[in-house]
Amino acid sequence: MRASRFFISTLKDAPSDAEIVSHQLMMRAGMIKRLGSGIYTYMPTGLRVIRKVEAIIRDEMNKAGGIELLMPLVQPAELWQETGRWEKMGPELMRVKDRHGREYAIQPTSEEVITDVVRSEIKSYRQLPLNFYHIQTKFRDERRPRFGLMRGREFTMKDAYSFDRDEASMKASYKIMYDAYTAIFNRFGLTFRAVAADNGAIGGSGSHEFHVIASTGEDAIVYCPTSDYAANMEAAEALPLAAARAAATAPLTKTATPGATKCEAVAEMLKLPLNQTVKTIALTVEKEVAGKQVLENWMLLLRGDHDLNEIKVGKVPGLAGHRFATEAEILACYGSIPGYLGPIGTKQPVTIVADRTVANMADFVCGANEEGFHYTGANWVRDLPEGLVADLRNVVEGDASPDGKGVLAIERGIEVGHVFQLGTSYSESMKATFLDENGKPAPLQMGCYGIGVTRILGAAIEQNFDDKGIIWPAAIAPFEVVLCPMGMDRSEMVKTEVESLYAALQAAGVDVIVDDRGLRPGAMFADWELIGVPHRVVIGERGLKEGNLEYQGRRDLEATAVPVAGMALFIKGKLSQ
Amino acid sequence: MRASRFFISTLKDAPSDAEIVSHQLMMRAGMIKRLGSGIYTYMPTGLRVIRKVEAIIRDEMNKAGGIELLMPLVQPAELWQETGRWEKMGPELMRVKDRHGREYAIQPTSEEVITDVVRSEIKSYRQLPLNFYHIQTKFRDERRPRFGLMRGREFTMKDAYSFDRDEASMKASYKIMYDAYTAIFNRFGLTFRAVAADNGAIGGSGSHEFHVIASTGEDAIVYCPTSDYAANMEAAEALPLAAARAAATAPLTKTATPGATKCEAVAEMLKLPLNQTVKTIALTVEKEVAGKQVLENWMLLLRGDHDLNEIKVGKVPGLAGHRFATEAEILACYGSIPGYLGPIGTKQPVTIVADRTVANMADFVCGANEEGFHYTGANWVRDLPEGLVADLRNVVEGDASPDGKGVLAIERGIEVGHVFQLGTSYSESMKATFLDENGKPAPLQMGCYGIGVTRILGAAIEQNFDDKGIIWPAAIAPFEVVLCPMGMDRSEMVKTEVESLYAALQAAGVDVIVDDRGLRPGAMFADWELIGVPHRVVIGERGLKEGNLEYQGRRDLEATAVPVAGMALFIKGKLSQ
Repeated sequence: MRASRFFISTLKDAPSDAEIVSHQLMMRAGMIKRLGSGIYTYMPTGLRVIRKVEAIIRDEMNKAGGIELLMPLVQPAELWQETGRWEKMGPELMRVKDRHGREYAIQPTSEEVITDVVRSEIKSYRQLPLNFYHIQTKFRDERRPRFGLMRGREFTMKDAYSFDRDEASMKASYKIMYDAYTAIFNRFGLTFRAVAADNGAIGGSGSHEFHVIASTGEDAIVYCPTSDYAANMEAAEALPLAAARAAATAPLTKTATPGATKCEAVAEMLKLPLNQTVKTIALTVEKEVAGKQVLENWMLLLRGDHDLNEIKVGKVPGLAGHRFATEAEILACYGSIPGYLGPIGTKQPVTIVADRTVANMADFVCGANEEGFHYTGANWVRDLPEGLVADLRNVVEGDASPDGKGVLAIERGIEVGHVFQLGTSYSESMKATFLDENGKPAPLQMGCYGIGVTRILGAAIEQNFDDKGIIWPAAIAPFEVVLCPMGMDRSEMVKTEVESLYAALQAAGVDVIVDDRGLRPGAMFADWELIGVPHRVVIGERGLKEGNLEYQGRRDLEATAVPVAGMALFIKGKLSQ
Repeated sequence: MRASRFFISTLKDAPSDAEIVSHQLMMRAGMIKRLGSGIYTYMPTGLRVIRKVEAIIRDEMNKAGGIELLMPLVQPAELWQETGRWEKMGPELMRVKDRHGREYAIQPTSEEVITDVVRSEIKSYRQLPLNFYHIQTKFRDERRPRFGLMRGREFTMKDAYSFDRDEASMKASYKIMYDAYTAIFNRFGLTFRAVAADNGAIGGSGSHEFHVIASTGEDAIVYCPTSDYAANMEAAEALPLAAARAAATAPLTKTATPGATKCEAVAEMLKLPLNQTVKTIALTVEKEVAGKQVLENWMLLLRGDHDLNEIKVGKVPGLAGHRFATEAEILACYGSIPGYLGPIGTKQPVTIVADRTVANMADFVCGANEEGFHYTGANWVRDLPEGLVADLRNVVEGDASPDGKGVLAIERGIEVGHVFQLGTSYSESMKATFLDENGKPAPLQMGCYGIGVTRILGAAIEQNFDDKGIIWPAAIAPFEVVLCPMGMDRSEMVKTEVESLYAALQAAGVDVIVDDRGLRPGAMFADWELIGVPHRVVIGERGLKEGNLEYQGRRDLEATAVPVAGMALFIKGKLSQ
């Protein structure tokens, strides 16, 4: 490519609405252009990166037995109604009516359509397993689009769907995709981590997220540096901090704590460590029993310095449909205003669930169900009966790893891929069956697998930038190498060498751009550092007279002189590293 | 590719709603799958063809200096309001509201967005010319989607937009695109014709359509076999059939023609040839003059056997906003009911426009403006004043070519590409200007250039099929070559040779598929003939024992024995033809 035939448009300053570095740098490097809220035109430089990302994904998906097709953007509402997602998805699902008033979804994902394709195509177990994928524009009407391509409304996603005859085979297909994803993110040249994840609303039984590691990442991910345990914060299991409960040593004492409604204030007032306090969270579950609405009171107990993990709460048997109790409900149940609640002496019966750590505490502090009072020296069995125990909290740095092989660390990540074991939730609601070995219809076992193609760009930049701009890994850089001639229009010598090196690199299959725009060196270098091309060669008369060209890697602090004749090989060597 | 790792799903019969052969064959070959009205999933075999079409387009667009970007599908209504197309496009433009009630168009084309991109990026004539393109999903809410990919609602289009400093430069950019389109359609291996076209609603000053020639084509296209004249029916110029007017020989005679309201009936009743009759078409033009609405009466005269060309009528000065006259208007103006109208003796003044051929007629028959009567022997000058003359009719086979180099022929075509000289219509309404050499702002001169990517598939099939199925040109075939082993599972000899030939062809860059599904020969051959792979090699024990493989081209009536060792080279030879 010659820069004079390409379109390069860089900016000194990022627009004020660009809050994060990847958004700022993509705008400044002229990779994207905002059209509307969360909607971007991918400019030529940005599109080149997208195409390279797509090519790597496609190659690895094909190697893993994926079969590419292309499903429509505009999808009939009827299919989405079959699975109930037409209602469930809410305003995130962009809906449109055609001239005849028929309703359609603009696809945010394609489970319904692929299941519809497969239910009409697959008759027998002999046709299985199958894995279909497509790389297609998606739309999700985010409430608050932001961060450029990181949380856009229109974006490109690769979504794959596997179909198997039984769970074991589905898990094997899932493993193949997990491995393919690992290969894909390795080829991108990004530091990433696969973590166990909660399945969330999509249903099913197992799932992993792939995160690009970046200090600016939205998500906290948990891992054990001395084992292969890794999970996202929602899914990371918290073990009890003490293996067993200590014996009670203090008497249960009602203590005045006027105005102290938070554990921190109570601990400070009583001069006790925060980790001896217990906080109470009052929940309500609405149930229908024999046609009548019944309210159940539930109470969660968490150590004062721990954070509640709502995903885990939702998994406690009986708490799937919980909500926080209202102030009126709290007054009726506990006889106290919030801030002083506790498990001892409630007015109405309450089902108590203690976090694993709380269940092993002794001599703890908790609310006394009376405004302005807490108990100190509370102990299980002696002062209150042992109740249900569950993992209710977020892990913290230094917790024991659930696999027993070390302690947990936490880092920040950006979710760029997600693999799910869907099981039969879609195939059952859409009646997608096949005939098994015995000629009996059985629902297809499904998996689904997504990669946020355009999001990769943002994540790669959040992980790889400096004060000059982006630093692309070579595999997904818009160009691998830029040739910067000094005074090409004045020097025949420079011109000849540029053309010769350009031809040699192209012949070697290197993706190279010559900057023939005639800019002065400072502006030219600044452009390419901002755009983030990983390898730069400067061709100048002074060097040429000594038989040299100047090479500088994007992360190098200084240039290296390389003999003219050896440059093409030198570059090939750099690219194969 | 191995068929066992691909997805092949063929049908004996096409669904009943598939009216044309390309739709039937694409459904039967498993290339597309209907999701909704005019909305299709591109199945793996179909997608391979689409990708090949796209790759050829991309390659030639890049060679021609086009710069690829990707514009969004969902485009803010405000941009479409700037050009007035939000209103003008009517229900074909699919509109959608987001969760905040903001309106968007789902792009049917991207003039507005690219003009918006360019107006903010282009400051100076030094940045011009520029040509941006993208290959993207489009949506057009057709009133009656039909014919599979031929007139779908969701489809893929390549649209390019050129920006120039002046008209001469714009015309040069247009010529480059015209040539690139010629190269593209040649590379597809399709018989096509570029024809001059009317610009239609898109505005501007010049345009050509690219048609794939097929007897089932929707459009009539006109060409001169002995010159390079070619135009579509709307644009093809009709010369007068006689070079000069003959002298009057018959007297003007009012003749009873009771019940004969059509030229055919009049000619039959009077025993005169149809080409001596003239038909009258009454038009009305509504105008505002000094704030008052005024109705103008216009009359078109056409020879009895000719068809009116409404596009041409709209181009007659004064007739841009015409409509057909109502019966009440006709009665008031002519004093007669329709069917007996004529240019002689109208009640109100009428502006008469004669088709070029009518202007040179003598002794003709026309209505007498009295129910049940026509004139015979009507002659210009003697019986009625010479009026305006214009080209008003469709050409017919055998008409003189407007370039004077032969006579016109007519064939059927399918429009697959269109190039337009847009001029400044979009840049003026959107205020897309640049600073010229004198530092003065001037509107950008634009061109736009479309290729219907998915439509190419339908058009290629309409041109290339037989009773067995599709016959793809090799350049866009889903696979170039299929290897059909006979009893691969039973014969080690067959298996070894299949693998060896597969490896040799792959190494030679041939897109080859091995049918390792284990079907019996009849079913296997029928599948590949239906899918339309252009080259087939059969590997069987019998042939191998004689040192031969069997080659058969998709259009060949018989197979050819080719020595085993020479097959790879033989195939390469076939593909380079």
